[in-house]
This record gives sequence, structure tokens and C-alpha cells, in this order.
Amino acid sequence: MTASSDMTLNPALSSWVTSANAAEADFPVQNLPYGRFRRAGSADAWCIGVAIGDQILDLKLAADVPGWADGLKDLLLPLAAGELNDLMGQPAAARHQLRAALSAALLANSVYEAALAPCLLPQAEAEMSVPCRIGDYTDFYTGIHHATTVGKLFRPDEPLLPNYKWVPIGYHGRASSIIPSGQPFHRPQGQLKPPEAELPFLGATKRLDYELELAIYVGPGNALGEPVSLAQAESHIFGLGLLNDWSARDVQAWEYQPLGPFGAKNFASTVSPWIVTLEALAPFRAAFERPAGDPAPLPYLASDANQASGALDIQLEVWLQTPRMREAGEPAIRLSQSNYRDAYWTVAQLITHHTITGCNLQPGDMLGSGTLSGPQPEQAGSLLELTNGGKQPITLPNGETRRFLEDGDTITLRAFCQREGARRIGLGHCSGTVLPVRATT
Amino acid sequence: MTASSDMTLNPALSSWVTSANAAEADFPVQNLPYGRFRRAGSADAWCIGVAIGDQILDLKLAADVPGWADGLKDLLLPLAAGELNDLMGQPAAARHQLRAALSAALLANSVYEAALAPCLLPQAEAEMSVPCRIGDYTDFYTGIHHATTVGKLFRPDEPLLPNYKWVPIGYHGRASSIIPSGQPFHRPQGQLKPPEAELPFLGATKRLDYELELAIYVGPGNALGEPVSLAQAESHIFGLGLLNDWSARDVQAWEYQPLGPFGAKNFASTVSPWIVTLEALAPFRAAFERPAGDPAPLPYLASDANQASGALDIQLEVWLQTPRMREAGEPAIRLSQSNYRDAYWTVAQLITHHTITGCNLQPGDMLGSGTLSGPQPEQAGSLLELTNGGKQPITLPNGETRRFLEDGDTITLRAFCQREGARRIGLGHCSGTVLPVRATT
Repeated sequence: MTASSDMTLNPALSSWVTSANAAEADFPVQNLPYGRFRRAGSADAWCIGVAIGDQILDLKLAADVPGWADGLKDLLLPLAAGELNDLMGQPAAARHQLRAALSAALLANSVYEAALAPCLLPQAEAEMSVPCRIGDYTDFYTGIHHATTVGKLFRPDEPLLPNYKWVPIGYHGRASSIIPSGQPFHRPQGQLKPPEAELPFLGATKRLDYELELAIYVGPGNALGEPVSLAQAESHIFGLGLLNDWSARDVQAWEYQPLGPFGAKNFASTVSPWIVTLEALAPFRAAFERPAGDPAPLPYLASDANQASGALDIQLEVWLQTPRMREAGEPAIRLSQSNYRDAYWTVAQLITHHTITGCNLQPGDMLGSGTLSGPQPEQAGSLLELTNGGKQPITLPNGETRRFLEDGDTITLRAFCQREGARRIGLGHCSGTVLPVRATT
Repeated sequence: MTASSDMTLNPALSSWVTSANAAEADFPVQNLPYGRFRRAGSADAWCIGVAIGDQILDLKLAADVPGWADGLKDLLLPLAAGELNDLMGQPAAARHQLRAALSAALLANSVYEAALAPCLLPQAEAEMSVPCRIGDYTDFYTGIHHATTVGKLFRPDEPLLPNYKWVPIGYHGRASSIIPSGQPFHRPQGQLKPPEAELPFLGATKRLDYELELAIYVGPGNALGEPVSLAQAESHIFGLGLLNDWSARDVQAWEYQPLGPFGAKNFASTVSPWIVTLEALAPFRAAFERPAGDPAPLPYLASDANQASGALDIQLEVWLQTPRMREAGEPAIRLSQSNYRDAYWTVAQLITHHTITGCNLQPGDMLGSGTLSGPQPEQAGSLLELTNGGKQPITLPNGETRRFLEDGDTITLRAFCQREGARRIGLGHCSGTVLPVRATT
């Protein structure tokens, strides 16, 4: 599927939902991301919807509107029941059939406008959940600038380990503690052993951090023992969202050898509410280039297509609002920006490497990109990097300083794609606020 | 709940299912483990059953027998629907109510014998699945003798890292690739870089290994942000089974820094079919003693009760049958035996540490104990240890040698508890066979 062959991506298209036509809208009719919502403050059953402008098309209501083509009802029924995973598991052709139908129904002058207008709910009146059932969550480490900067803190002479440019490094994360954007979480306690302490002790983390990541959601997936080739890999990706992989750096430093991060990251991971399909991102494919002198990927991770257009040009931003800013009515400030183009491995390579030993991926599984820092120091995707391991605090416009996150701080991630000749596609935002530590029970 | 207060544990009890009364039976009426089964070769829906002797009590059929006390029907209905997780999430009192009723129904001279006899299926005629929905799988590293021996291979001067005696080291595993006992799996391929190779390459693992572990299944679990105290921890454990955490040692050596094992272990993890409840293991509680000179656990991981009886006296065995042995009609041979008493952390400590940062556990989640090697070299729970990192092959009685597993090898784990004055309680077995690597697609 190229941009030019997919009518739903035509930048000239507009919608009868007029807020979708604003130049800065995240969710124009070319986007059509899926999310799971209910009316805020209600105890209604969760329902799948499609974001359009500042509205949500309620697919439970929309499914009852007459006129859907044959076969679409079967795709819409699980969505109407609040279940995205079934659609995620469908082959690309079926997913595209639904996308094309939703596009046609929401286009300006659609004959369905009158029937579908009552199926809209303003996003401002909705509560959003995690968008799908995430069976397994894997976190990769594809941000080479993040890996280099963090590596320097621990190993000044050898910031990148010998395997980094060969193996898409990843580890298994905790699925149960993935929470939706907007849900606050408590500062975790854990075992700490700062360099000056003789013995470890239990205490609240003093080095709480965010990590700017993208979430890659698995589509159909593969059977156990059957690796997915690089050529097939993208057909197993449903779409992308934002991910904040909150991290307690002091807990992590003490616990992570030899088996990797555990309690330092399993207390909360926040995801954005909308999954933007890989189809909607087609106009933002980019060449995937390794720095001169770097080794070529092993053959199972290499292809001409991956090199020509395996990367994604997605702009990323981190915003901070402190309690003092909130009380003063001051908006959040941007801490950094970077671009997913700078990742060291493509989404297709992640799928193929994940399955190469035979591991099975299932619809709704989530792969984290790893922290996406840019090549410049100010493009870092975590405070650990921005403050040089907490040694050099950053100063905010209102005079406050931060080494790590303080109680009440709200971090918001944003992502969007834009270029000449294509409609802007937004991923929306992913937001979370730090609550004070709970008393130990 | 102590052994003496629980009538279902009385060693004098016998069952009208006479095979349960054999002295060597794994599943006497004092055990009553749960599993998920269907008639072998059928496409029937999965159903929950209770093992009794060499039979399975089909709870779908049994639920329809009149006479269950009030409240039990609500517990039995999800079981009849093939779903163990609902029972796992019930409070201890409800779980015990069902256990007591099952015990009464299966005791010799029970008035229910005539009605329940038609609800039995011989285990030999059943196919078993993974016993419950495992949302998240965490693997711990509580076998200090394993950690020490493996650590010596990598760091002769510092086999145990400084955090080992303070932090119950664990990492997140892959839930999707957990398979039931009896299901074979393909030798995985992966990135390899043996010491003599200049560059890494893709190839079939040459160092395929087993790991002798116990699986600890979570009961009710906790809400996000609410750690489970050590005093409450055991009420969140449903029961135990066996786990073989198959490992590709060469893949692991190349990939595992800095974030831990990934493809080396996510191709297959085999679990035994029956979950033996913590109640059934009550007679085999043991004192939990740390070697003299070791630090006391931090206060959140320490209690008098944990020290007095936090450990479990479970005998563990690993058996190997090679293809040549199979063809010659020779039985499997025992490779090693050890005991869960030697683990460095108790099951309660694992629950509490897992949740200390706020991580939520859910019914059906599985915690691996880590490889349970005993203090003597011949008690090792993996070939990596038995062969000193592959350098000293073991010789089998038929003259074959093994450094690591070969295609066609079947590894079977067994576990049981026995002591004077208590009925023997078995965990059954956990078996898996290595198939040849698949051709790369």
C-alpha cells in the first residue's frame, strides 16, 4: 500500500465533521485512529470509536446505521462490543476495507452525514481507556542517542555495548500496569542504594523519570515457532500510539543487574488513547539510513524496501507542567523534541527480530520503541539525559529547577507528522501526573 | 490455615477413587489440584477438572450433580465454563469452601460416589492445556546455588552480584509462549556470536538448555499502587506447578546486556498441567534459614512467620530421555534432584517484592522461581551447570554424552512432597521434546 494508491490519504479530502478540517487538527479524515471510550462520569460499557476532529464516531451506534457493505458488519460487531483486538487480528485487506468505508462515511457531502451525526460524542465529554487488550508488552531500545547518552553515564569508555548495532535490544515489560493517558499514579517506593549508602533501604524513589516512546501495536501476529519475515513484518503491525515508560532510576540502578529492569518500571506505563494505523502514516515513510561506517544489519533484518522507506518521520515532543505552573495558570512548557526517523531499527525489524527465535505475537501486543532521543543533547527523551544523570538541573521559565520529577508534575507527550503535500496526521497526546508516595502498609 | 486445622489434609483420609489411595499417588484426596482438560483427540471445549488418583473429576459434569452447598454453584459455574481464573481471584475463604466440598465429595463412603463416578475421565484419555489464563509471567532468580554457579562462569571473582542477597532478582518473561506439558517445540534460531566468531550470524542455537523451576500462580492479586504486605502475601497465592524455562544459552550470552534475556527464552516455556494449591502444601512448610553471615532481609521482606515456616519442602527432579533411549525402549534417566527449601527467597517474599513499587498482580499471573539447583554440583537444575558451561559433557548410562540438548531429547520435570505423618502430595510432571530447527522463511 503506497500513499498514492490509497484514496483515503488524499490531502484534498475534507469531512462533514468540520473540526477535522482545521490545519492543525490531529485527527483529520485522513487519520481515523481507533480508541476505546465511554461517556465521562458514566458507568457505561466501553465502546470502540474513531477520532474525527474533536469528536468520536461511536462505532456501536454507527454499526446500527443501515448501508454498510457486506462483510463490514462482521468487522463492526466486535468493535460495537468494545473489543478492538478482533479487528487488529484481521488481515490487512479487511482492515483496509473498514478504513475505506469509514473514510467514505465521514467525507464532506457523504450521504451518511445525517444518519451518523447522532453517533458523534465530543472528545471533551469522553473518558478513554487503554485502547485494546495488551497481552504482552515488549520494550525495545532503538533510540541510539538515548542508549549512547545513558551508556556514557555508566561506561564512559564504552557507552554502546558490542551487541547494540547488531541486535534490536529489547526486554519484556509488564502488561498489567499499563494505564491510560490522564490516570495519575503514585510515586513508587522500592529498594534504593545510593552510592553514599552503605546498605540498601526501602524508600520513595528520588529519581523518578519519564521516557518518550512510541507504542507499536501488533496486528494479526504469528504462530509459535513461525518467525515473521521482514517482507511480511509490516502486515503484522496495526498501528502506533504514544508511550511514557515511567522509570525510577535509583531503583533501576540497584536492581537491574543481571536480568534487566523490573520494579523500576513496572509501577505504571502510560499509553495514549488513540492508535493511528500504519496506513494513515504511509505519507510519512522515510529512508532508513545508518551512519557511515556502521555494520549492515544481518540478512534477516535487511531488505531494499526497509532501507528505502522503513523509517517513519514522526515528530515527538515532551511537555511539563509543574504544580506551581498549574496554580499560576501557566501552560505546560516543552522540554524537548525529537523525531522517530532517528531510531536505529525500523518497526518491521522489531517484528522480525521479536519472532526470529519462534516467539509468537498476538493481536494487541504492544512493542515500545525505547526512549526516542535526538542526536542533540536538548533533544533527549528523558530527564536522566537532560540533566546529565541528575547532576545538572534544568531551569524552567518560571525559575523552578528539575533534576527529576516532583510530586504533582504532569508530563505530556505529543506526536504528529507533517510535510508538504500531505495532510497533517497527529497521534494525540499521552499525559500522566505524579501523586505522592503512599504510606507503606 | 495450619495443617492441623484443615480436615482436608488428614493423612488418614482415603477416596472412593481407589487409585488415589496408592502410597505413591501424586494426587491423593489430600491434594485436589486444578487443571484444564478435554478428551484427547476431541475438539471439545476446555473444562476445569480436579485430579484424583489417575482420574480427573470433570467439574462441568460435577456442577450439575445436585447437593452442592449454597454459594458453591457460583464458584463452580466459571469452572464448568473452562475458566480457572475466576476461582483464583476468590478470597481464601471461598477457595477453601470449594476445596472442603470437593474433599467431602471424593472421600471414601461419600454419598456422592454414585452421582460423581460418571463425572470421571481417566487422565490417560485427557489432553491438558495451560491451566489458566496467564496475563503476565515474571521469572525470579531465587536459586542461589544456580546464581552462584552460573555467575562463576561469567565472573569467577564475583559470582553473586552485590544486590543478590537484598533484592529478590526477577524480570518479566513472555506470557504468549507458555505451552502445556507434552507440546514439543522447535529448536530456536537466533543471533549467535560465539567467542571464536568475529561477527554475529543467524543460526540454530547450539546450546539449548532446560531450567528446573516452580511456577507460582497468583490468586486474588492487588490494585495498582497498593503493595501487598508480607503478612498478606500468601493469601494472594493460589498454588504451585512445575515450569521448564527453556533457554538458548548462546543467544542469551550475546543479547542479554544491558536489559536481560529476551529471544533466548521467549520461544517456549513449558508448564505442568496441575496447579497444586498452597493449602495442599501446608504439611510441607519448612523453616526459612539464611546461611550464617548473610544479611537479614530488609524489614518489608522479613517476619517471624516467614522465617518460621515460609519455605516449602518440595523435592524436585529432572529426567532425560534421548531418542536412542526411546528407540531402545529404555526409560528416562534422572539427571539431578534438588529441593525448593534451598531457594533464597520464599513465595511470600516474591509477592511482596513484586508489588512493592506498586505493580499490580492479577489472578492467573505466574511467577517462576528461577532455576532450583541444590548446593551440590550434581543437584544442578540446568545443563549449563551440570556440564560447567558446556566444557565437561555428562555421560549417560547408555554411553551417550550431552553438553546441551539435542533434537529429540525429552526433558521431564517432577516434583513431590513427602514426610513422616503426612500424605504424599505430588505436583505431577512437566515434559517437553525438542524438535529440529525450522527452515528460515
